[in-house]
Amino acid sequence: MKTIVIKLSGILFSLNSDISRIKKITKILEEINRKGFKIIAIAGGGIIARNIQNTARTMNADEAFLDQIGIDVSRLNAKLMIASTTKACQHIPKNLDEVVNLLISSNMVFSGGFSPGQSTNATAALIAERTKAKLFINTTDVDGVFTSDPIKNKKATLIKSITITDLFKKLNPEIMKAGTYDLMDMLSLKIIERSKIPTVIIKCDSTRIKSSLSGQFIGTKITFSKL
Amino acid sequence: MKTIVIKLSGILFSLNSDISRIKKITKILEEINRKGFKIIAIAGGGIIARNIQNTARTMNADEAFLDQIGIDVSRLNAKLMIASTTKACQHIPKNLDEVVNLLISSNMVFSGGFSPGQSTNATAALIAERTKAKLFINTTDVDGVFTSDPIKNKKATLIKSITITDLFKKLNPEIMKAGTYDLMDMLSLKIIERSKIPTVIIKCDSTRIKSSLSGQFIGTKITFSKL
Amino acid sequence: MKTIVIKLSGILFSLNSDISRIKKITKILEEINRKGFKIIAIAGGGIIARNIQNTARTMNADEAFLDQIGIDVSRLNAKLMIASTTKACQHIPKNLDEVVNLLISSNMVFSGGFSPGQSTNATAALIAERTKAKLFINTTDVDGVFTSDPIKNKKATLIKSITITDLFKKLNPEIMKAGTYDLMDMLSLKIIERSKIPTVIIKCDSTRIKSSLSGQFIGTKITFSKL
Amino acid sequence: MKTIVIKLSGILFSLNSDISRIKKITKILEEINRKGFKIIAIAGGGIIARNIQNTARTMNADEAFLDQIGIDVSRLNAKLMIASTTKACQHIPKNLDEVVNLLISSNMVFSGGFSPGQSTNATAALIAERTKAKLFINTTDVDGVFTSDPIKNKKATLIKSITITDLFKKLNPEIMKAGTYDLMDMLSLKIIERSKIPTVIIKCDSTRIKSSLSGQFIGTKITFSKL
Amino acid sequence: MKTIVIKLSGILFSLNSDISRIKKITKILEEINRKGFKIIAIAGGGIIARNIQNTARTMNADEAFLDQIGIDVSRLNAKLMIASTTKACQHIPKNLDEVVNLLISSNMVFSGGFSPGQSTNATAALIAERTKAKLFINTTDVDGVFTSDPIKNKKATLIKSITITDLFKKLNPEIMKAGTYDLMDMLSLKIIERSKIPTVIIKCDSTRIKSSLSGQFIGTKITFSKL
Amino acid sequence: MKTIVIKLSGILFSLNSDISRIKKITKILEEINRKGFKIIAIAGGGIIARNIQNTARTMNADEAFLDQIGIDVSRLNAKLMIASTTKACQHIPKNLDEVVNLLISSNMVFSGGFSPGQSTNATAALIAERTKAKLFINTTDVDGVFTSDPIKNKKATLIKSITITDLFKKLNPEIMKAGTYDLMDMLSLKIIERSKIPTVIIKCDSTRIKSSLSGQFIGTKITFSKL
Repeated sequence: MKTIVIKLSGILFSLNSDISRIKKITKILEEINRKGFKIIAIAGGGIIARNIQNTARTMNADEAFLDQIGIDVSRLNAKLMIASTTKACQHIPKNLDEVVNLLISSNMVFSGGFSPGQSTNATAALIAERTKAKLFINTTDVDGVFTSDPIKNKKATLIKSITITDLFKKLNPEIMKAGTYDLMDMLSLKIIERSKIPTVIIKCDSTRIKSSLSGQFIGTKITFSKL
Repeated sequence: MKTIVIKLSGILFSLNSDISRIKKITKILEEINRKGFKIIAIAGGGIIARNIQNTARTMNADEAFLDQIGIDVSRLNAKLMIASTTKACQHIPKNLDEVVNLLISSNMVFSGGFSPGQSTNATAALIAERTKAKLFINTTDVDGVFTSDPIKNKKATLIKSITITDLFKKLNPEIMKAGTYDLMDMLSLKIIERSKIPTVIIKCDSTRIKSSLSGQFIGTKITFSKL
Repeated sequence: MKTIVIKLSGILFSLNSDISRIKKITKILEEINRKGFKIIAIAGGGIIARNIQNTARTMNADEAFLDQIGIDVSRLNAKLMIASTTKACQHIPKNLDEVVNLLISSNMVFSGGFSPGQSTNATAALIAERTKAKLFINTTDVDGVFTSDPIKNKKATLIKSITITDLFKKLNPEIMKAGTYDLMDMLSLKIIERSKIPTVIIKCDSTRIKSSLSGQFIGTKITFSKL
Repeated sequence: MKTIVIKLSGILFSLNSDISRIKKITKILEEINRKGFKIIAIAGGGIIARNIQNTARTMNADEAFLDQIGIDVSRLNAKLMIASTTKACQHIPKNLDEVVNLLISSNMVFSGGFSPGQSTNATAALIAERTKAKLFINTTDVDGVFTSDPIKNKKATLIKSITITDLFKKLNPEIMKAGTYDLMDMLSLKIIERSKIPTVIIKCDSTRIKSSLSGQFIGTKITFSKL
Repeated sequence: MKTIVIKLSGILFSLNSDISRIKKITKILEEINRKGFKIIAIAGGGIIARNIQNTARTMNADEAFLDQIGIDVSRLNAKLMIASTTKACQHIPKNLDEVVNLLISSNMVFSGGFSPGQSTNATAALIAERTKAKLFINTTDVDGVFTSDPIKNKKATLIKSITITDLFKKLNPEIMKAGTYDLMDMLSLKIIERSKIPTVIIKCDSTRIKSSLSGQFIGTKITFSKL
Repeated sequence: MKTIVIKLSGILFSLNSDISRIKKITKILEEINRKGFKIIAIAGGGIIARNIQNTARTMNADEAFLDQIGIDVSRLNAKLMIASTTKACQHIPKNLDEVVNLLISSNMVFSGGFSPGQSTNATAALIAERTKAKLFINTTDVDGVFTSDPIKNKKATLIKSITITDLFKKLNPEIMKAGTYDLMDMLSLKIIERSKIPTVIIKCDSTRIKSSLSGQFIGTKITFSKL
């Protein structure tokens, strides 16, 4: 079983999701299927998750409860993906063992998050690890990893290739500012590192996804230092 | 165990739900709890459900699949209700047996829908039947049942009391216009009828809910003819 | 995946079920399988269900509890069907998603009811809708839909073809006599209508089932008016 | 938690169960509850199970499949018991851990069998062991253990007290005639022995059940030799 | 579906399991797979189970609770087996129905025990019965059934073939010494008998397992008297 | 509901666990119960987990699979804890919602890990967050947090109080050495920080646990800087 794991950025989903954009992505996924790869795509929560979480936070819900709301919405988004193709497994897995079993009889599995305290990024990394993925495609709302924040700094340039160690260091200063960074990405990086998962970080776009399978693509590739 | 079952109109929920309105309602529910009644409140799907369903319908999903999306969103709404009070059971039941078991140790249970092909109204009626509810409060976005459609006909007046047989007759002409009516309400009416469940139809508002427990309230009461 | 959905009348099952009649039906189902159709057959509750329900009703059980007993017995009947062939999936699905997943690896799935407040007819209609069935065969203990009740009126004749709208109208007068009709069939009709499911109503007999797949058969076909 | 475990003979259940006999038994169970004991009652399968099993066996089902049908019917019978009282837990446990958890919040739990290859007698013995029951009441269709088969031998007399070792010996000759004895009772005896569970074997009758709690009763008591 | 069921002796597993021994066995299992047989292998609990059970027994846990610990450890051992090959189903079944369903899409399924009061031997026998196994291979830490206890009596010789009736008789004297024998093997023998399951008892060793499929092997074959 | 959450170090468990040490700890937990606090104690995996994981790793299992083995063993350890007292909930929760529900009717709940990629430390932190714990007691095999590694540096001294920010910084240099640190503790720290959970890190010992509830104790307290 050769698998490719794709994290679909939450940016893809809203109360008025861009259907043509979704359809284009599922067409690429079907194409990858035909090339002989099984696909597991993990949907993020996006703006619906954030809004409902904000409402619940205002009512004093604890963070783990809010995480669960995020997971619920990511599963709704995964359902939308299922509706966008006739090739997908109809069941949304709730844990790693289910993913592995669904892949026995399905070629395309859509998932949301699994567990509070674990971002959908980390869930995707775990799935990539458990299924020994040939490639883990992590899609975001920017082009990849930049030399600095591209929004604040116009001279920031895209990094085409970075070692996992350098990526940790890059994230590190931000880690020290408690509350401002996304630890969950730390967890997914850690999983990528411990199992040396081939990983690219790209923009959530059908053309970019397609090209990420070839050598030439726009985005950032994570590399591992030799031992 | 004396229970009161409340269907909460989907109108209560959106991406920017009116928190103070929700909080007022949960306060009333806590008050009813203190009077010695256990409460099961069933949330509708509302605008979030309708929007995601529309997206999926555009992608050609079947109606039963769309029903399931509606159920998922109604459970998210039930979670918001859980967050609005410290008295609620944290678990959302998936079927009637679970409701009954949760009521052993909980005084306030929030639920969404149960099954495709079954509106949250019908789910609420089944719960009222299964728990032998003292009262089934069905909240909507209007004041109750009117002599004619209050939006089209300004002279329409609220009906304070109607027999279940008359209510069936009233809905009947609409039933003949396939596609335009809500059969699901037929199912809930049928359940109300077969078990003679004491039922009121009122506006989804904390003051109305409170007064519906007393003799005097604004809304429609369903009555059963003697045999 | 091309599927055919068959509701098996409860009349097929009793404490002394007619094994040869059941075996003949499963042979036809196997034949349909070989023609390239996946089959989902939903068993009714029949006399065992009715008897146990009556005992429980005498002991004052609520109607939703009795519905659940009916579902349990329909699943026992589905087990008998599973025992009648070596081609069947051994697992009885509990909801629509399970049906869809079982069909990935099985060609013949037997089911009972799903949910209180929903007849096995309605369950079958939902399954037909969810699996986009090529044909929904609803078997009963009579030949199909008649111009009037064939037991009371000897001149009643079988209707070969009826629009869904006329079928609603036909059932309508009965709907007004609360308590005497079977609303659940209303629900299944409604599902057939909303998804325009190709449907025939025939007697529960192996020969009739077989011929219903061809153009010529004894029974009633439901048609949909053009828009 | 002090518990009393009762195996209810399958003879109690049929398509036309004797409701007054069942009601009398549940009244006694409620009485025992009021004395401060929690009750777990396990229903046998009875004639409905045997008939459906025979039908399936004729269709060549394997024995483990037939065991499962027996378990399903025993759970239907447990549902009837639940309907006979307002004091019972509505949920039927599927394994030992569930029993223990249900007893936290319920005083009266009804169960059927648990697992193929395990009679409802053995299930009841395991429940008695797991809940450290003060008494395990095993009801049958005869008065208890006799000196010889009371149907074949009119001079057979009821044994009031027997050591577990003697009971094994008594069953032993029968064990050698393969196919004619009920090994499952061997399993339940073995469980009774390994945990020295206080056990009586009596007729399935409300008066007998009641008196079995006192010193004086009609039936057989199992004793354990001192070490 | 032709299946072969293998009980893997608990002796195979410890805190320092002999990996090469396990690997040799999985290679044989893969070989049997290639010959066209589906395999279900049931792992015993072994020394880890016994040690943890002893600790819990010292703390006064009941026997059924200890049985459950044994089941948990046997499932951990089954996971080790899964890790030893790329051909195995990743999911460990919890009951017979799951086994049957996993076999639809998997060729090699590993399992532990199912239910307290049931040895892994008996679980294996039930699985062999339910899947109509061509052969049930029961592996132990000795060569098979001996004329007397080979450890106490040096003149004991291996019995190459024994009728199920004689095997019952052989175990019988031991049965009478309460507490010293393993009743669970009684249960598995009983299941083997009622369904005449082709069974061999051999040492847990890859070469022995391989040869047990041919006519010539070292071990004991169970035979059934003609009727 | 006032809860106290305790992570029990894996060091407590082995094939020959020190029963008296465990018993002393459960006595303290019972004492805390009597003071009006509900307790959730999360067991680590310890040496049994590590050994079985090593065997599976040698056989080339992926890391997420190994994590699951660790979770399974931590649940076995939780069972041992359950056996050590008569006050514990018999059910081991599998996720946060289950924890919350079990606490409705239980005063003492034992748990293992929840999800691959999440240490039992992080699971414990999430439970503390979700139940708004008054105190999170994290027990280890050393006295608490030291100025440097106490094994390598004899002059290392115990830090009595440390801000969460300083604790992050302290762990930071180690984070940069990929593969040598325990990221999972990063995750638990992050959860402690985002919800400002009152936390102490102490040695896994009954006396230390007891004193950690008072002002005076041997170990490290985590503090939060004012905003």
